[in-house]
Amino acid sequence: MSDLSQLLDTDPVVATAGTDMLADSIEQQGSAVSRADWQPPHAGATAALAKLAADGRMPEANATAIGKMLAVRPHLVDVGVARDVFPGMTDRTFFHAGPPLTWERASGPMRGAIIGAMLYEGLADDPDDAAAKAAAGAVELSPCHHHRAVGPMAGVTSPSMPVAIIKDGAGDGVSYSTLNEGLGKVLRYGAFAPEVIERLQWMDRVLGPVLGAALRHRGPVDLQSLIAQALQMGDDGHNRNRAVTSLFLREVGASLVDGADAPTEQRLEVFKFIDNNDHFMLNLVMAAGKLGSDAAAGVPASSLVTVMARNGTDFGVRLSGTGDQWFSAPAPPVDGLYLGAFTAEDASPDIGDSTITETVGLGGFAMAAAPAIVGFVGGTAAGAVRRTLAMYEITMAEHAFYQIPMLEFRGTPTGIDAARVVRTGVLPQINTGVAGKVPGTGMVGAGLVEAPIECFVDGINALARTLG
Amino acid sequence: MSDLSQLLDTDPVVATAGTDMLADSIEQQGSAVSRADWQPPHAGATAALAKLAADGRMPEANATAIGKMLAVRPHLVDVGVARDVFPGMTDRTFFHAGPPLTWERASGPMRGAIIGAMLYEGLADDPDDAAAKAAAGAVELSPCHHHRAVGPMAGVTSPSMPVAIIKDGAGDGVSYSTLNEGLGKVLRYGAFAPEVIERLQWMDRVLGPVLGAALRHRGPVDLQSLIAQALQMGDDGHNRNRAVTSLFLREVGASLVDGADAPTEQRLEVFKFIDNNDHFMLNLVMAAGKLGSDAAAGVPASSLVTVMARNGTDFGVRLSGTGDQWFSAPAPPVDGLYLGAFTAEDASPDIGDSTITETVGLGGFAMAAAPAIVGFVGGTAAGAVRRTLAMYEITMAEHAFYQIPMLEFRGTPTGIDAARVVRTGVLPQINTGVAGKVPGTGMVGAGLVEAPIECFVDGINALARTLG
Repeated sequence: MSDLSQLLDTDPVVATAGTDMLADSIEQQGSAVSRADWQPPHAGATAALAKLAADGRMPEANATAIGKMLAVRPHLVDVGVARDVFPGMTDRTFFHAGPPLTWERASGPMRGAIIGAMLYEGLADDPDDAAAKAAAGAVELSPCHHHRAVGPMAGVTSPSMPVAIIKDGAGDGVSYSTLNEGLGKVLRYGAFAPEVIERLQWMDRVLGPVLGAALRHRGPVDLQSLIAQALQMGDDGHNRNRAVTSLFLREVGASLVDGADAPTEQRLEVFKFIDNNDHFMLNLVMAAGKLGSDAAAGVPASSLVTVMARNGTDFGVRLSGTGDQWFSAPAPPVDGLYLGAFTAEDASPDIGDSTITETVGLGGFAMAAAPAIVGFVGGTAAGAVRRTLAMYEITMAEHAFYQIPMLEFRGTPTGIDAARVVRTGVLPQINTGVAGKVPGTGMVGAGLVEAPIECFVDGINALARTLG
Repeated sequence: MSDLSQLLDTDPVVATAGTDMLADSIEQQGSAVSRADWQPPHAGATAALAKLAADGRMPEANATAIGKMLAVRPHLVDVGVARDVFPGMTDRTFFHAGPPLTWERASGPMRGAIIGAMLYEGLADDPDDAAAKAAAGAVELSPCHHHRAVGPMAGVTSPSMPVAIIKDGAGDGVSYSTLNEGLGKVLRYGAFAPEVIERLQWMDRVLGPVLGAALRHRGPVDLQSLIAQALQMGDDGHNRNRAVTSLFLREVGASLVDGADAPTEQRLEVFKFIDNNDHFMLNLVMAAGKLGSDAAAGVPASSLVTVMARNGTDFGVRLSGTGDQWFSAPAPPVDGLYLGAFTAEDASPDIGDSTITETVGLGGFAMAAAPAIVGFVGGTAAGAVRRTLAMYEITMAEHAFYQIPMLEFRGTPTGIDAARVVRTGVLPQINTGVAGKVPGTGMVGAGLVEAPIECFVDGINALARTLG
């Protein structure tokens, strides 16, 4: 207060917010202006935001929801087989990434992955046969997210695939994911060449059983602890999983050396397969996220984003207070770094459930912990820090376990508040792999993308309608 | 140049360097001063610096020396036994860290490690017996650095110990180190309890042979590649080696699963031992550094620092242009974080050959890559970045392979120029473990320390004397 008297003794400093007219005219008069990066709330959500504010329940609801998201303690306990793990899964049920989808609306990589999974399951003789049968309704599509599961990229999960089983060490929750195939020509990127199918067959014949036996031998692996350590080792939990994969191999390695239940050759194959795939842990980090996401779902009046997921056609969002409803918009293109001779022309729009990582304070939200990721997804280390810092604007908490050393161990920005997204216009930052748009291509690159505002506007409007 | 005419149209900005008188008086007159962090060259080296400048050979000599340091490609090829590996090592030869030393002048942890190694080698019945015999000259002490070897902390290397063998993939060089015991009560920190001796016995009976067999089975491990990757995963190569240890376990893990030559139980013990010791790779990173250090030694007129090493009593430095000469000063105390109930009162002065890491662009010089290290050695992440940035002032090169993602992949500051140290007064930044000063204690903490200026002043004077 004592400085107030000096206000007119020093040069005035002008800060502006909103439209540029005021700032422009001051600058024309030769004065410096500090422009705040502010924009008014999205016009399509102002009435809903006002209703939510007037109702008054949202803050406490959000505290409840984010508390539930942060309270889970995901542990990897076993590996099962999809048809045994998922109630009601039939021989012709295929799960997929993102919001609900039909074959007709499916993107190239999604169609490619469905074709590949049909060949793998013996439901078709060749790719053309598979496509024709799929178009005729031979398989029943259902989102992974409807079954406590997540899948990266196309996320196609068919009955014979091995499935990781994650349980909550602090509650009753359970979540699932497929196992990661590696990069390049792999099913989840829409590839279905013979090598892809053969790898999937090896995964259900060797990888799943041997890894399951190793886990039962050693006991559950604390995924949250591994992820927390990995963030101090340059991972972000989405597109850089080299540290967490290394730590996981240390966790299960002794069981693979000891190997009560499997022949040496198979244990050796499993060790080498994981060692050769720095993205092996992606699916398990995702499943750990899904556990928190499901725990936080269904809190009335909460604007917490529990799901962001893309199927290659639509980008879908769910909020805690609106339960099972999806709010979708067209999946955006990715600002990518492309492999070899591939270009943006070859890229399919954004796809995959892997945005569950961003939903729980990892991935694009934790990029400040993973500056080396820019070699894979593009941008600069300074830009990676800026992305993380921006996410504190739209999140509800700083994660107690997931800390960023370079930010003096500040917790990652966790729990997206859809109300703050529409109020600030700050969009969730995502890093992601990029699939080729022609079915069968596989991976063509990786890059950066922002979630579409429309999903959050629709979500906030729907949330307002749930109030009395 | 066009701005020069406007020089007097704007407010003057004053920058000062050197003594504070000018800056102080300007500030007293109410103007802002930007003080440059500058000091004149060390008074004890001005004549020598002038002679080196007049001679003119130093720049080219330094280019040659740093080129040799950077040209090595260290590979871990095998594990042998000290008495077989080191020519002329007798049953009573003990190598130690730092410059030459006698029992009389040895610090507590050095005496403790010598006592422990005598018990381990069966040269004494109990600690008192060992101390009496050592005082009577029962063992012959010789610096590791005189034998192409390095050892962390006390660095005591006795004839029965397993020794890692590192070879140059790009030349004829070879270097050696003991294997790392872990933290806490361990020989290198001066502990000699029965558990310490039993661990050493297991290391020569199981760890050395099994790891050697695994290495012969898989072929050489490219240490430079592992270290480069680890710097992108939050390691500094000195007191944070969690990533490089994880990557190393991935490298040798398959051989431990497969395990041609050893019983399963021993392979399991080895896997678990390495997995339980995030510092396992410290000794091997050090040996990789020693390979570069030895390659760069002996270039006439070069002021490149090839060795910084401490024996707990003295801090010793060697320069390329002065060959085998040591320039020593009292080992400084460490600014430490202490374990449990230990305090600075319990600490021995700086000790160990591990400063070879700082000598080759790692450790304190690479702390910007390892912000999480501050939880172990103290300070802040921002301070870790500042330490690294300061080291560019006194180094000759930016490492081509060892890059720091957060500095947009800038190479680590590598190759200390003793001439620049005495000219700028900027001292090499070191992070280090801290040993208890009472023999037998073991580790009491970890912290930060600067190399003493006197070593560099003496070195530069000696270098000047070598010129015609």
